[in-house]
Amino acid sequence: MTVLDTLRNHVSVRDYTPEPIPDADWQELLRAAQQASTDATGQMYSAVELRDPAVRHTIGELLGQRQIATAARALVVCLDVRRLRLLLEHRGERLGIRPAVALLFGITDASLFAQSVVVASEAAGYGVCYIGAVQNHAREVANILAIPEGVVPLWGLTIGRPASRTSPKPRIDTRQVVHVDRYRDPTEQDLGSMFEAMKAATRSGDWLNAIRKYFAVGGIMEQREESFRELLAAQGLGI
Amino acid sequence: MTVLDTLRNHVSVRDYTPEPIPDADWQELLRAAQQASTDATGQMYSAVELRDPAVRHTIGELLGQRQIATAARALVVCLDVRRLRLLLEHRGERLGIRPAVALLFGITDASLFAQSVVVASEAAGYGVCYIGAVQNHAREVANILAIPEGVVPLWGLTIGRPASRTSPKPRIDTRQVVHVDRYRDPTEQDLGSMFEAMKAATRSGDWLNAIRKYFAVGGIMEQREESFRELLAAQGLGI
Repeated sequence: MTVLDTLRNHVSVRDYTPEPIPDADWQELLRAAQQASTDATGQMYSAVELRDPAVRHTIGELLGQRQIATAARALVVCLDVRRLRLLLEHRGERLGIRPAVALLFGITDASLFAQSVVVASEAAGYGVCYIGAVQNHAREVANILAIPEGVVPLWGLTIGRPASRTSPKPRIDTRQVVHVDRYRDPTEQDLGSMFEAMKAATRSGDWLNAIRKYFAVGGIMEQREESFRELLAAQGLGI
Repeated sequence: MTVLDTLRNHVSVRDYTPEPIPDADWQELLRAAQQASTDATGQMYSAVELRDPAVRHTIGELLGQRQIATAARALVVCLDVRRLRLLLEHRGERLGIRPAVALLFGITDASLFAQSVVVASEAAGYGVCYIGAVQNHAREVANILAIPEGVVPLWGLTIGRPASRTSPKPRIDTRQVVHVDRYRDPTEQDLGSMFEAMKAATRSGDWLNAIRKYFAVGGIMEQREESFRELLAAQGLGI
């Protein structure tokens, strides 16, 4: 299977067999993913791997994502400017990066690493699931994992051998996502076509149900704003 | 070459041959990368591909990154909550997501897409370069590309056939990046080992020169804070 096939076949997998990922393979995979681009060699991310079954169970129950307990591997991926602060202080310098830019480049660094873990895992036949629900209980997750100031838990990632397979979900037309030379707004007809294209993304057959639940006024994303800001402040990156 | 080899061999390539990437291959690659995970099916990103040679030249000169003019393909990748706003309004709903959470999930979505483009490109023998310097002139880039409210240019990406090859840069030890069950601070000895491991990352042989220039007080990242905040405010996502 080519890398393009691997990307095209991506689905979120929450249902895993008990097959482990051997430690040597896992370490090799993590090390390869670290080679992802990182702005100015800064490596502004960390991950906490969940191994203790009690920790797995507690966080899985807290987030309502039981695959955290059953996956072969589970990570909580974090933005990290703490390590850079300690490195600079070790040599008598002080950290100058501030919160908004730390968010931009830290989330990017963390995401490039995580997506490299994902593509390598899927190429090896494993299935993965990103877990945005970390943001529903991020303070508790930070406490459980002793995540200190300068480090912000972003989302989780679980990896394991899929127990079952689903079909890839649709995406909107590439022409609506990749513009040429200038950004162009969709027409009303384009918007209708996107709902049509995304029909199969939700059980109800109407994509509006999914995007309303998360992105509309009163939705899950809006509900996360206050607690995400509180999390940033508590971790020393208040905006 | 396996996907792990592709990841391990990643280097930033700024020096390209004139060989084009055929449009059919490019469209196939973009479409495959769109299949990357996206929180709640939201696809909170867009890219603007730079094709017009005048646009390529102008932005390349502005950022001091001439590979923008010479690469086979060049993208400016953006966080995008505008499309979701238009989709919701098309069906009589209103967008509720607010700026901090939009940054978190929008930057993540954009990064997972971009990193999938990168891995697929590298697997096909192309070389890539992320361009964080977009943040040195992001308002001008937004103007040139007519990037509207609700859309924020994050960074660029160039792709083409490498004219020369360099060796992969070092990374810090995986044990300092992936913690187990709880975050652990590095010891002074660990910090010294990281500088030792990262020696080859900079021409001077002292990693401090690289991280001081970008991350210390008065460094490039600190200098970007005000303008990034102004950019966010101008694009309707002020924090």
